[in-house]
Amino acid sequence: MAIAETKVRLPIPSLPKGFRVAGVHAGLKRNPTREDISLIVSDVPATAAGVYTTNLVFAAPVAFDRARTPGLGFQAIAINSGNANACTGARGIDDARSMAAATAAAVGISEASVLVLSTGIIGEFLPLEKIRSGIVSVSSQLSRNDEAVVTAARGMMTTDTRPKLTGSNFSAAGKTYTLFGMAKGAAMIGPRMATMLGIILTDAPVAPADAQRLLGEITEYTFNCVSVDGHTSTNDTVLLLANGAAGGQSLSGSSLDSFSAALSHACEALAHEIADDGEGATHVLRIEVTGCQTRETARQIARTIADSPLVKTAIAGADPNWGRIVSAAGYSGVMFEPDKLSLRINGTLLFCAGAPVVFDGAAVSDSIQAFRETLIQLDMGLGQESIRFYSSDLTAEYVRLNADYHT
Amino acid sequence: MAIAETKVRLPIPSLPKGFRVAGVHAGLKRNPTREDISLIVSDVPATAAGVYTTNLVFAAPVAFDRARTPGLGFQAIAINSGNANACTGARGIDDARSMAAATAAAVGISEASVLVLSTGIIGEFLPLEKIRSGIVSVSSQLSRNDEAVVTAARGMMTTDTRPKLTGSNFSAAGKTYTLFGMAKGAAMIGPRMATMLGIILTDAPVAPADAQRLLGEITEYTFNCVSVDGHTSTNDTVLLLANGAAGGQSLSGSSLDSFSAALSHACEALAHEIADDGEGATHVLRIEVTGCQTRETARQIARTIADSPLVKTAIAGADPNWGRIVSAAGYSGVMFEPDKLSLRINGTLLFCAGAPVVFDGAAVSDSIQAFRETLIQLDMGLGQESIRFYSSDLTAEYVRLNADYHT
Repeated sequence: MAIAETKVRLPIPSLPKGFRVAGVHAGLKRNPTREDISLIVSDVPATAAGVYTTNLVFAAPVAFDRARTPGLGFQAIAINSGNANACTGARGIDDARSMAAATAAAVGISEASVLVLSTGIIGEFLPLEKIRSGIVSVSSQLSRNDEAVVTAARGMMTTDTRPKLTGSNFSAAGKTYTLFGMAKGAAMIGPRMATMLGIILTDAPVAPADAQRLLGEITEYTFNCVSVDGHTSTNDTVLLLANGAAGGQSLSGSSLDSFSAALSHACEALAHEIADDGEGATHVLRIEVTGCQTRETARQIARTIADSPLVKTAIAGADPNWGRIVSAAGYSGVMFEPDKLSLRINGTLLFCAGAPVVFDGAAVSDSIQAFRETLIQLDMGLGQESIRFYSSDLTAEYVRLNADYHT
Repeated sequence: MAIAETKVRLPIPSLPKGFRVAGVHAGLKRNPTREDISLIVSDVPATAAGVYTTNLVFAAPVAFDRARTPGLGFQAIAINSGNANACTGARGIDDARSMAAATAAAVGISEASVLVLSTGIIGEFLPLEKIRSGIVSVSSQLSRNDEAVVTAARGMMTTDTRPKLTGSNFSAAGKTYTLFGMAKGAAMIGPRMATMLGIILTDAPVAPADAQRLLGEITEYTFNCVSVDGHTSTNDTVLLLANGAAGGQSLSGSSLDSFSAALSHACEALAHEIADDGEGATHVLRIEVTGCQTRETARQIARTIADSPLVKTAIAGADPNWGRIVSAAGYSGVMFEPDKLSLRINGTLLFCAGAPVVFDGAAVSDSIQAFRETLIQLDMGLGQESIRFYSSDLTAEYVRLNADYHT
């Protein structure tokens, strides 16, 4: 597989020290060119933190990982796509444990140091034989090169059109550390834990409590501010592994702040990628709600706009239909004064202090058509709090993909 | 216009005594074969009750009517389609009053006895000259015949494909009364006041307080249990006129119960029609959630399923994708025990006590394809309360209609 064919955005980010990855096709997906098992191994034990779906109906790997994180001593994440191992009862939990055990055996580590992730169809049991042989195969191909990174990222994709990768370096306590992230999105992307799967790796040393706190806080305003279709998945998980392989003591104070900034940047980049690659999407909606009394009410307004099929189809049609946006704010459940509300699309003022403004509709429509991203700015005129939320437009292609996915 | 061409469901229900109606084309819609002004006149003063949108951004006619109802002495409802008179500020309120004044002058009644309704594009001022001449024209064509009823119902349509009418007789206190209803739906049909416009007429005598209480209660479990796209409109209104023209004293006790049953039947029939004629719909989803501790939690689960684009596209694709339904319940915000949950589609058990059931997927898919209505039954196994909720499926045609509506 040539990397150019994967549509990944270049350059491919570097892996942090001490991590190796790979992805292989093991027969869970029908198409033999699509990887469906990925493996991430840390050569030294790492701190792990996790943030999981809030859906009451959660998948077996979510239950399995949630019981283990945050903590120390982790060395591997095994991932399969094509099967979510969700709604599979007690057998699903046994299967998740079998997947971890197979990984431990193949890599030569303890079962307690393995985390597992699954994504794909709900309600079918994991094909354990395929998974076991896939894990043996993938463990023999672990590498730090670009192709390994891309195949690992592809191994977690479902209807994503491209791998989602991000990376950066940051300095802390006189050392340079690397942070790497990858994610999958596409659909069943809901507002309460907004990626199916996200993985962040760093060679910085971070204590479990710090890793968990920062991952939770940052997820809240990055992954949890994305919605493709408002449908919170059963499998949503973001995992962070920090193996300390680049040396130094556990980060604290301003060093921890540097790590936090890099983590925030990575989560933001992946969240944007997920909206951009929403199923059938032709536009990303960047929704900025300002002038609110609390950040939570700003998010509630933004989420209601982000999930309105009427707003999403208007943007797909390059239609500056501000009435749909203003009325979505109106049913968000947040109290506000319509007379103080103003709205801009791509910088043009369409509605000001509760009344329509004369504007060049054709010019705004042209600007929506011209850019992949549409900027929707709603100022409520009530306070100082704000939020930024990402969504994707709703196209006939989304309907086609989801009407035909299962049968 | 031949009635057969309007696709209305036959037979056309009879108007209650003392009511006359008509609909005309006045130039608000571009297509000259589409009526856009309707008028309902009661020859004698009637009790009026109203239920309105909960959207904070509400239209001028909503503000106008809400200030007048419930009450006595009403004689007319003037309706226009093609323009919602929403987000139009103080001038919008003046325009609503001008529309009522024009109606009063044309019919020869007092302005205080008129209610107005508008539906259509948000954010443009009412074309008052067209509306005034339309009202003069429609007031000269008032009639009780079938064609008048159908044109009046067509005059409130936007993207509806057919007029929505219902009617029945009921007996109370030794007399026979008639109840008549009409509605428009199509899109911007949200869960908190679920029809753009609904009108119920009866020749029974009903006191304003009783009319208001019953309309509010019944709307809650009929129109407010419908969602096409979850987007609560700025204009949603249901009005009830009770003119007492069939004689008798104000209904009370068991007579009022008879009226309540007829009203409930009419609202239920119109709510179903609205879901059935949802924009682009190829299926109505009838979602029955049972076994809940409260009716409100049952509704919250049903509404989450009804609004999930993944559930709606699955039904469009005749796909018995129960994972999407169960996971929608899981993110509804209602606490429940997944292990007690069971799901049937069109009578076939797919998921029982938290675990998948072996079923004939092709047979269930065939049954979804064969029928206009898909029955989704979710039992939560926690209590005795239940709800019935209507939605429509999500098709590429919905996207096409809404991407192209404005520009």
